[in-house]
Amino acid sequence: MIYFDNAATTKVSDTAAREVLRVMTENFGNPASLHNLGISAEEEIINAKKVLAKILSSDNADIVFTSSGTEANNLAIRGALYARKRRFNEYVLDSAGHESVTATAAKLKDEGFSVSEIPPLSSGSGDIEKIIEAVNEKTALVSFILVNNETGSRTDVKSAIKRIKLKNPETLIHIDCVSALCKEEISFKKLGADIITISAHKIHGPKGIGAVIIKKGVRITPLIYGAAGSLRPGTESTPLIAGFAAAAKEFYEKMAENEKTVHMINGYLREHLKEIEGVTITSPPDANDYVLNFSTNKIKSEVLLHFFEENGIYVSSGSACAKGKSSHVLTDMKLPRESVLSAVRVSLSGENTLSEAERFIEVLKKAEEVLIKSF
Amino acid sequence: MIYFDNAATTKVSDTAAREVLRVMTENFGNPASLHNLGISAEEEIINAKKVLAKILSSDNADIVFTSSGTEANNLAIRGALYARKRRFNEYVLDSAGHESVTATAAKLKDEGFSVSEIPPLSSGSGDIEKIIEAVNEKTALVSFILVNNETGSRTDVKSAIKRIKLKNPETLIHIDCVSALCKEEISFKKLGADIITISAHKIHGPKGIGAVIIKKGVRITPLIYGAAGSLRPGTESTPLIAGFAAAAKEFYEKMAENEKTVHMINGYLREHLKEIEGVTITSPPDANDYVLNFSTNKIKSEVLLHFFEENGIYVSSGSACAKGKSSHVLTDMKLPRESVLSAVRVSLSGENTLSEAERFIEVLKKAEEVLIKSF
Repeated sequence: MIYFDNAATTKVSDTAAREVLRVMTENFGNPASLHNLGISAEEEIINAKKVLAKILSSDNADIVFTSSGTEANNLAIRGALYARKRRFNEYVLDSAGHESVTATAAKLKDEGFSVSEIPPLSSGSGDIEKIIEAVNEKTALVSFILVNNETGSRTDVKSAIKRIKLKNPETLIHIDCVSALCKEEISFKKLGADIITISAHKIHGPKGIGAVIIKKGVRITPLIYGAAGSLRPGTESTPLIAGFAAAAKEFYEKMAENEKTVHMINGYLREHLKEIEGVTITSPPDANDYVLNFSTNKIKSEVLLHFFEENGIYVSSGSACAKGKSSHVLTDMKLPRESVLSAVRVSLSGENTLSEAERFIEVLKKAEEVLIKSF
Repeated sequence: MIYFDNAATTKVSDTAAREVLRVMTENFGNPASLHNLGISAEEEIINAKKVLAKILSSDNADIVFTSSGTEANNLAIRGALYARKRRFNEYVLDSAGHESVTATAAKLKDEGFSVSEIPPLSSGSGDIEKIIEAVNEKTALVSFILVNNETGSRTDVKSAIKRIKLKNPETLIHIDCVSALCKEEISFKKLGADIITISAHKIHGPKGIGAVIIKKGVRITPLIYGAAGSLRPGTESTPLIAGFAAAAKEFYEKMAENEKTVHMINGYLREHLKEIEGVTITSPPDANDYVLNFSTNKIKSEVLLHFFEENGIYVSSGSACAKGKSSHVLTDMKLPRESVLSAVRVSLSGENTLSEAERFIEVLKKAEEVLIKSF
C-alpha cells in the first residue's frame, strides 16, 4: 500500500497512540474535578499547551482545544465576528480557504454580516493586494490559509498582516495553519496573527482534536454553551489532547529531516510528471513540499483515483471534506475546466519513500496508456 | 483509592481502550475519503451506530456524533430551536438539567427566544404538571433529564411526553440521557422522544465523544459549518466513536449485574448515613442507584471533600462542570441553605465494592468527629 493522501488524514504515530492510551487508562480524571484526580488530568492539558506554545512561539496567547480543525475555524471566525459585531461587521477571506472557512463565511453572510471572498492568485496563494484593498474601517476579521490544503500554495501572511494593521489596527487576523503545522516554521508572535487554528490528525496525531490559539486580550465568544466562563465547555478529551501534543512534539523535532524526504519525493514527482504529455502541475514551484496537485487534463479524477487504488495507491482529487465534489480552490484559481476535473492531489508524509514515488509514476504512465480519454 | 465520582467521569474500560487503540492504529483512514481506506473508516462509524441503535431501540432515528454531552445538548436544543424559529419560538425545560442545558437556555433567552425554566419537585424529579402547563402552541421544544446527574432523581418522561404531544403535537421532546445510559433501560421508540443525547465518558468510554439521536424526519440545524450537507462537520473521531460503542455494548450487557452491585452499595450507604445525626439524604428512595446525594448539614462540602481525599476517597459536591459552585439543582429543589452548602454526591460504578462503602462510612464518621462545624 502506498498512502499519498496525508492531507486527508495521517496514520497515528506510535508515540501519539501510546500517549492517548496512557492518559486514557492511567490518568482518567475529569479535568474539571476539584480533587487530585481532576488536577492530575488538568496537568495533562497544561503540559500539552506548553508543548504547543513552544512549537508555535505563542506564549503571548491562550490555547483552546476543539474537536477538529473545522470546529477550530468556526470558533475562531464566528467567535471573533460575534464578539465584535456592534462595531465591526465585515469579514474578509481568501476564497481558497478550507470548506470550514468558506462555509462559515456563507453562514455569516446569511446572518447579515458583510463578507468579502477574495479569489486566490493563479498560483493558489492568497491575493494579498486584493485582500488588503477589501479591508476597511468596519473589517472585524481577515482569514488567511498559511498553506493551502489542496495545492500547498503558501501565502506571505506576515507582510500582509503588517499592511492590514496599518490600514485598520482594529482588524483581527486569523490564519488557518492546519496544513502548515509541523510542515512550516510557524511563529505566532513573529507572524503578528491574532488567532490561528491547528488540528492533530494531519500530523500523525489522533482524530477528534484541534485547537484555536488566541492572542491574550483578544475576545471571542463561544459557540457552545455550558460551564460558566468557558470559551469551549464540555469535558475535555485529555487523552486526545496529550496525543496531539505528543504528535506535534515528535513531528516538530523531525521537521527538517521530513522536509528533506518530502522535498526529494516532490522533486522526483515533478520531474517525472513533466515528462508525461498533457500533464500540468498546479502546485506552484514554491509550494509546500507536502502537497503536489497536478492534472492529467485527460482522465477524470475519479477514474484515475480508482485506477491508482486498484494498484494499491491512495491519493485524492482534493479535500476529503469536499467528498469528491469538484474543487472550489482550483475553480477559484481559474484553472481550465479539464484541469479541475482531472486534478489529483498527492499529499506526502515524512514516512513516504522515493520508491513509492517511482511506483506512483509507473502506475500513472500505465493509466495514461490504458484509460480512455475523459475529455 | 476509592473512586466514588463516577458521575464526573469514569475510568475507561480495557475493552473500550483497546478499541480506541485498534481503530487509531489499524484503521486510520478519513471516513470522508472516497477510497477504500475511507470506506473502511466509515464502516467503524456505521457499526458503532448499529450498536448504539440496538441499545437505545432507536432504529427510527439518526445518530450524529459530537465531541461531548455538552455539545450534544447544544446541538439538540439550539439545533431544534433555530430550525423551527419561524413558527415556534418557545422553549420549556426542567431547571434541574445539566449546566449545558441551562446555559443553552440562557443563550436562547439572550437571542430573544421565550424560555420557561420549570423548577423540579422537592424529590429532584422534573415537575411534569408545571412543564405540561407551560407548553403552548408556540412551544418548539421541551427538555427533560431522564436521570438527574446530581441526585439520580428520575422523571417519568414517557407519560409526560404523551400528554405534551396531546397538548401540542408539533412540540418536540429532547431527553438528556447522559446520566441514564447503561444505567436505565432506554427505549427511544417507547419513550416517544424526538431527540436524546448521550456521552461516552460516563459509561467507561473515552472522553471527547457524545451523540445526538434524532428521530427520522425531525430537522435540526447545525451549530458548526463545514462540509456541505453535514449536520456536524469536522473529521469524525473514528477511534472514539468505536470506543464509545464498545463501552456501551459492554456496560449495556453488564447492566443487570452492575445494577445489583450499585443497589447493594447504595442501600448500605443509605442505611448507615441515616445513623449519623444531622445527615439528610437528598436523593429520593426511587432515584437511580448510581447516584446518592446527601448533606451533613454541618461540614461545608469543600472541607469534607478534602478530608475524604486525604483518606483516598474521591467524591464531589455536585456536577464537575460547576467547578465547586453551589448546586443550582439543590437550590432549585429548595433545599435548606446548609444542605446545599454541605452536599456530597457519591456516584457509583459497577466496579465499586461494598468494602469501599464501608470504608466511606468509616471516614465520614471520623470526619464528623474531628471536623469543626461549618454552620
